[in-house]
Amino acid sequence: MSPHPLDILSAAETNAARDLILSLHPNAVLSFREIFLEEPPKQQLIQFLTVEHAGKTAPAPTRRALVQYDVIGSDRVPEFHESVINLDAQKRESQTVVDKSHHASLTLSEFDTLVEVCTKSQLFKEACAEYQLPEGFEVIVEPWPYGGLSPGEENRRYFQGLCFARDTRSGNPDSNFYAFPLPFIPVMDAHKQEIIRIDRLATGGKSDALDAKTHSKKIIDHCKSSEYVPELREKGTRTDLKPLNVLQPEGPSFLVDGSLIEWQQWRFRVSFNPREGAVIHDVYFGGRSIMYRLSISEMTVPYADPRGPFPRKQAFDFGDGGAGNCANNLSLGCDCLGVIKYFDGIVTGPDGTAKVAPNVICLHEQDNGIGWKHTNWRTGRAVVTRSRELVIQFIITLANYEYIFAYKFDQAGGINVETRATGIVSVVNIDTGKTSLYGNVVSPGALAQNHQHIFAVRIDPAIDGYENTVVTEESHRAPVGKTNPQGNYYEVRQRVIERSECFDAAPMDNRIVKIVNRSKTNPISGKPVGYKFTPAPTQLLLADPDSVQSKRALFAQHHVWVTKHLDGELYAGGRYTLQSQNEIGGVADAVKRDEVVENADVVVWNVFGLTHNPRVEDWPVM
Amino acid sequence: MSPHPLDILSAAETNAARDLILSLHPNAVLSFREIFLEEPPKQQLIQFLTVEHAGKTAPAPTRRALVQYDVIGSDRVPEFHESVINLDAQKRESQTVVDKSHHASLTLSEFDTLVEVCTKSQLFKEACAEYQLPEGFEVIVEPWPYGGLSPGEENRRYFQGLCFARDTRSGNPDSNFYAFPLPFIPVMDAHKQEIIRIDRLATGGKSDALDAKTHSKKIIDHCKSSEYVPELREKGTRTDLKPLNVLQPEGPSFLVDGSLIEWQQWRFRVSFNPREGAVIHDVYFGGRSIMYRLSISEMTVPYADPRGPFPRKQAFDFGDGGAGNCANNLSLGCDCLGVIKYFDGIVTGPDGTAKVAPNVICLHEQDNGIGWKHTNWRTGRAVVTRSRELVIQFIITLANYEYIFAYKFDQAGGINVETRATGIVSVVNIDTGKTSLYGNVVSPGALAQNHQHIFAVRIDPAIDGYENTVVTEESHRAPVGKTNPQGNYYEVRQRVIERSECFDAAPMDNRIVKIVNRSKTNPISGKPVGYKFTPAPTQLLLADPDSVQSKRALFAQHHVWVTKHLDGELYAGGRYTLQSQNEIGGVADAVKRDEVVENADVVVWNVFGLTHNPRVEDWPVM
Repeated sequence: MSPHPLDILSAAETNAARDLILSLHPNAVLSFREIFLEEPPKQQLIQFLTVEHAGKTAPAPTRRALVQYDVIGSDRVPEFHESVINLDAQKRESQTVVDKSHHASLTLSEFDTLVEVCTKSQLFKEACAEYQLPEGFEVIVEPWPYGGLSPGEENRRYFQGLCFARDTRSGNPDSNFYAFPLPFIPVMDAHKQEIIRIDRLATGGKSDALDAKTHSKKIIDHCKSSEYVPELREKGTRTDLKPLNVLQPEGPSFLVDGSLIEWQQWRFRVSFNPREGAVIHDVYFGGRSIMYRLSISEMTVPYADPRGPFPRKQAFDFGDGGAGNCANNLSLGCDCLGVIKYFDGIVTGPDGTAKVAPNVICLHEQDNGIGWKHTNWRTGRAVVTRSRELVIQFIITLANYEYIFAYKFDQAGGINVETRATGIVSVVNIDTGKTSLYGNVVSPGALAQNHQHIFAVRIDPAIDGYENTVVTEESHRAPVGKTNPQGNYYEVRQRVIERSECFDAAPMDNRIVKIVNRSKTNPISGKPVGYKFTPAPTQLLLADPDSVQSKRALFAQHHVWVTKHLDGELYAGGRYTLQSQNEIGGVADAVKRDEVVENADVVVWNVFGLTHNPRVEDWPVM
Repeated sequence: MSPHPLDILSAAETNAARDLILSLHPNAVLSFREIFLEEPPKQQLIQFLTVEHAGKTAPAPTRRALVQYDVIGSDRVPEFHESVINLDAQKRESQTVVDKSHHASLTLSEFDTLVEVCTKSQLFKEACAEYQLPEGFEVIVEPWPYGGLSPGEENRRYFQGLCFARDTRSGNPDSNFYAFPLPFIPVMDAHKQEIIRIDRLATGGKSDALDAKTHSKKIIDHCKSSEYVPELREKGTRTDLKPLNVLQPEGPSFLVDGSLIEWQQWRFRVSFNPREGAVIHDVYFGGRSIMYRLSISEMTVPYADPRGPFPRKQAFDFGDGGAGNCANNLSLGCDCLGVIKYFDGIVTGPDGTAKVAPNVICLHEQDNGIGWKHTNWRTGRAVVTRSRELVIQFIITLANYEYIFAYKFDQAGGINVETRATGIVSVVNIDTGKTSLYGNVVSPGALAQNHQHIFAVRIDPAIDGYENTVVTEESHRAPVGKTNPQGNYYEVRQRVIERSECFDAAPMDNRIVKIVNRSKTNPISGKPVGYKFTPAPTQLLLADPDSVQSKRALFAQHHVWVTKHLDGELYAGGRYTLQSQNEIGGVADAVKRDEVVENADVVVWNVFGLTHNPRVEDWPVM
């Protein structure tokens, strides 16, 4: 059977794409980064889906692979290529050699390289030797993207390592090394595979200078063990919680057929790619079209410590490393209750070979309390329903941090996108007894730096069709007057978004965003059919507008972006975020095109986040 | 065994209080409203609790009942009395004859009276006779509080009835009459027990005048049946949802002993009273004091339709009718999953006799998804916990509407107060084919009016003791400069609330509210111990500041109120809200006392709500 156009590439398809690329570069050294489905152009896919929803079979659009790979030159400086392969014709359709000012997303093998290079580096060994670690402690290098280049810095490919000490005495490899932060960061030139510099970290407190390195050689003697692995905890784990089991004796209520999921009037597809993780496609409810594509597009995590190299501490977890690449195997650690269906992904090794990433998405139902209730007080008759949700979930680990992303579908046609943050907060060493303006001491010697997490969800709507209009609606106080004699009236005010633009949440005006189809009227209300969402009024990016942190994350500076659909424009912060100095090709550029988005193929991006000034209670795991 | 000072009055205690009052008014006609526990003065109760927590037994404070009753005069105009009875000494300690400008909360028997009085009223019969209802339809009167008096109106005690027609042909008493609204409202003078007026309702649309009564005699012929009771639904109910069962084979993890609840380091008491419903007291976590008292204090629901009598449509569900009085019996309608423990309340009949209100509070545990997770990517070891919550819940029915209130305790010392709104949206008749500025047509002929729900939660904190301080903390962009060379730093700014005041949410500044105990320092962070909450930036009351709706709901105009504790000051909107024209003795008056609240016995009130511009999808049950 031929795959559905939205099915992810099989291992065989992935390897076929690899083979074709290898054959096209017979004399070069190649290092593969990612190979994944190049989704069909929207107009082609719509044609296919329209026929499919009519219950007929249409010819499938061409099956394509996007192959991202480095061609390694003699100077070890790679050329980054992006090729689109027509898998049906076994031909390359396009090839882009990416301008060297941009960097490909990192691969986890580059993280391994950093650790290896540190181990061999004389500079790094000397830095380690400066400190007197207690017996039984070893240095751990935690690879990180380098962050935004400092002004004037040569734009080579760099990686940095945050360093910690691990207590090996228990023999348990999961002893929590984050409790013992070391005050230096090795910086690797990825082309040379060489540590070019050791950045030294300040460890002072409130009254110290920004660069105060006031620590002693016995750098972690004031730190304290902070274990989270059950067998290492002195106090063990709680024993006073009795089991609560979720049983579904008749099995789940959903049907899964390949990428197709059906449940409670819903019908949609789920896919998976290395950058966005789980993506939802072609969403129908009760036989009516709701959405063409729904994805988590980007996330940035800027840190607010102004010292030394920390202004560079800013991750773009989707663009830099890839949410799909960092996705957990969910059958480990029994993350959900009830009957779980898992979906596998495909990842690519440096030699381009496909490898199954097992259980990267899970699907399950859960109870969400009372759905609705009404009691007729005259008769005493109570009618009550439970609310059931269908959850498509993936969880990513980025060094110390975990994010839990869930698309939740309810029984009434509602969709919720949920993000939860957990894992271990990022800490740096601070001298004994000091406190800081840049964060809170969460464990002795461990300063958790203030930071933000700002997410962008991309909504490609299809409300009863693909031509939609975005409208904001607000509720406003109205003055007393002829139409409001007693002052209780408030005005519901709408504004049509005519051309691409961005705007912010306005909770005091109860601003909501409606995506409507003006060509279809609800027969009861007499108003256009639509979906609404309320942009969460979360704090936007705080960094100074002229800072590198701000310039590379324009998307994080407004809550809602409304743009005209363009094939391939999926990433709020731009296609290449690793070491970027400016956001290029992100939502800000899309808005600048100043296109008509009324009764058009419109895309809505919703930005939200959290400002996290850590607390002691966040430690050791949030 | 003698009751704990926070135990609700037993039936015997209630009846003893009644008997004492009857003996004190030997020659009068009395009508009882409420009899419930008068909690001990805070200082006395603290003394008792301090000794109790030290594991010793202290003499219990005097056990007192508050008795609210009418002394009916010869003119049938009642005098409203509030007496405090010392149950230990069987003596009246105080008696207040409430000024006639205030009205006692309504009792459900007054609602019954309205229905009876309508049935006998010639005026009402004539109004009904003007309309041609289809065969098999009968008129239903839905009693409502009268709302705020119109300017210049004589301040007698009134009730009003919203009128609907019920289809009796099925023989099912739960046929949904709200689908058939009638355009008149009988107004009763409660003293005379007489319908004094029929208010006529406009039924026009956008281009009509405010008072356009453009309907035909066949007033509900364009309305449409909207059943929610399963056996009346033509389409039945969904059959494609398979069971999801929550089982706790070893029973729940909580311990209950009278009013005392213990679970996962938590220890607190729960009580119940006719006005506030479930109240939480004397909250400890891990042996440390957190809160003295936590309650849902008030709620107002103003409607925004400027026509006819609707500016009076504004309920104070706690002050007008009493959340406790309207609490559901929760074992009917199986509202929760898992192992449920129910608590009973006591209600008082017009003759003062105590009656058990069964199962008005439920207590259960529930799963809340992943608690925390971390995967060590080096070793692949994932550690994940589930999050368990303890939920104390009560549900109230107010005519068409239901509210679900829950106090949720988590395993990490966190408390969430949750409100959910369900039930049936309030509708009025609208002419065929018209739409309105004042709401949405949710069913043919049924206009759901725009309205708000604004809640106040009262937090009486006791963070490691009873002298606490409130601090706001915000995160602010900082300019580039010597202390912020690369612009990534943001400033965390605190402001101490020194004197009683109110302020609003400020999500763009990430404003949080901390309640701290400055006399205790967290040994790790070096900062005062405290609890924080983030005021939800929901829209505040929209009515014009000079409107009656606004003047009687000052509490609904700011998100946070910080006041000095005063015994008995429990109600954000004041003690007497029924037919009020101004908020008296509410939070605004408390703030006006301009007291020192730094290192003091401080009370924090949090106001939040929702602006509800109804949608077709809200019908027939939200």
